Amino acid sequence: MTERIKLTVAYDGSAYVGWQLQPNGISIQHCLEQALLQLSGQQLRVHSSGRTDAGVHARGMVCHFDSERVLPLTAWRDGLNRFLPADIAVRAAEKVTDDFHARYCATGKHYRYTLLRDPVRSPLERRTCWRVKASLDLDLMTQACKILTGVHDFVAFRSAGCSSTVTQKEIYAINLTEADALLYVDVYGSGFLRHMVRMMVGTLVEVGRGRRPVECLKLMLEDPARAPAAITAPPQGLCLMSVDYAMCQSV
Amino acid sequence: MTERIKLTVAYDGSAYVGWQLQPNGISIQHCLEQALLQLSGQQLRVHSSGRTDAGVHARGMVCHFDSERVLPLTAWRDGLNRFLPADIAVRAAEKVTDDFHARYCATGKHYRYTLLRDPVRSPLERRTCWRVKASLDLDLMTQACKILTGVHDFVAFRSAGCSSTVTQKEIYAINLTEADALLYVDVYGSGFLRHMVRMMVGTLVEVGRGRRPVECLKLMLEDPARAPAAITAPPQGLCLMSVDYAMCQSV
Repeated sequence: MTERIKLTVAYDGSAYVGWQLQPNGISIQHCLEQALLQLSGQQLRVHSSGRTDAGVHARGMVCHFDSERVLPLTAWRDGLNRFLPADIAVRAAEKVTDDFHARYCATGKHYRYTLLRDPVRSPLERRTCWRVKASLDLDLMTQACKILTGVHDFVAFRSAGCSSTVTQKEIYAINLTEADALLYVDVYGSGFLRHMVRMMVGTLVEVGRGRRPVECLKLMLEDPARAPAAITAPPQGLCLMSVDYAMCQSV
Repeated sequence: MTERIKLTVAYDGSAYVGWQLQPNGISIQHCLEQALLQLSGQQLRVHSSGRTDAGVHARGMVCHFDSERVLPLTAWRDGLNRFLPADIAVRAAEKVTDDFHARYCATGKHYRYTLLRDPVRSPLERRTCWRVKASLDLDLMTQACKILTGVHDFVAFRSAGCSSTVTQKEIYAINLTEADALLYVDVYGSGFLRHMVRMMVGTLVEVGRGRRPVECLKLMLEDPARAPAAITAPPQGLCLMSVDYAMCQSV
């Protein structure tokens, strides 16, 4: 008799090699599995909604695990937080049914990419923004966002190491929001290929700087072999905000 | 023939012992004087508008120095930034007259203290906020801010190590602004005693939590010997936003 627990996890990814266990450094998953071992005495495997790259942050990463030990939900949350480092925290723990799977049940994700429009270095933003020195034309960027929205083959927006067999994804919406010198790019979609958001944002910035015409986005979606390659925005501006589960409910 | 240069400096104070040179660790001032030596070959002394404590941040710290070497202003700014670590940056360099002094000419300062109202740890805010788990009554806190505004003897709001001979200061305004789970406390004043903003905010939070009546603030200002001691908020929530110089103009 095991029970399945869903965790919502936030982290500052600056110090990690990414979400997934890797031989070359410390991952978020490693820290979480270590904390589970210390808290419950069990060597548990954590299954996430997906990966995040080195330096990428999360406010709402979702994962699940099966425990033979039964603990109150607040004990999972607060107990894990006692063993986790300061840059990782369990925000919520919920009991879910056995057919819940953090990856296979996910119906959508919200990523936020934060740009800082500033000609000079800004130390307090350096870990969470991509600083763009040039001015950006937001009208052009908004037009480019509209082209990217909808169901498309995003093969031009994935990196070499991407192992997905299906490259058709749906982008529900891309919203640009200004807050002083910050520019938030909120991307909502059914699923994402490796580096997809960073390649979308990197290319949006090229359009905003006037270095690439808006129509270029159309060509990248429709005839990627003939289109110029996407530009990949750096990892520290990216944050996984939330993962949606329309069908799977918590118990 | 020297020329006086005014610098506006931003920093993430997390890794430093504070602004001022100290034997027990690395200070912002040390990094800046090192960068000046590397850039200009001169061993220069930097004079600041004041100090900030270990872990306190700045967006608009002001300091000045006298250089025998004449460089274009952008060379001071961009050149220093090449030699400074990523968590310190010169935001602006200006030429000022010889009667400008970063400390003695300052007519006001703006500090922002950031509170995070959240029952659970939040990794991405841990370096720049004080997380308060309890709920806060903003009406009570607003009343308390009004009591602190004006010309008062703030002797109850300074720490043991404070060497100021004058404890009467003027607080021009204290504004509370909510932004989702964040609560900004913006404090504008003529000058500040050691730990003054942190002790004001710590005590405001006591009032907001209902652990101290609003009237307590009056007693602390009028009869500090009979009043309960102030509570000091932690350093990482504090940021020096700007320093005002009404009289001294740049050249």
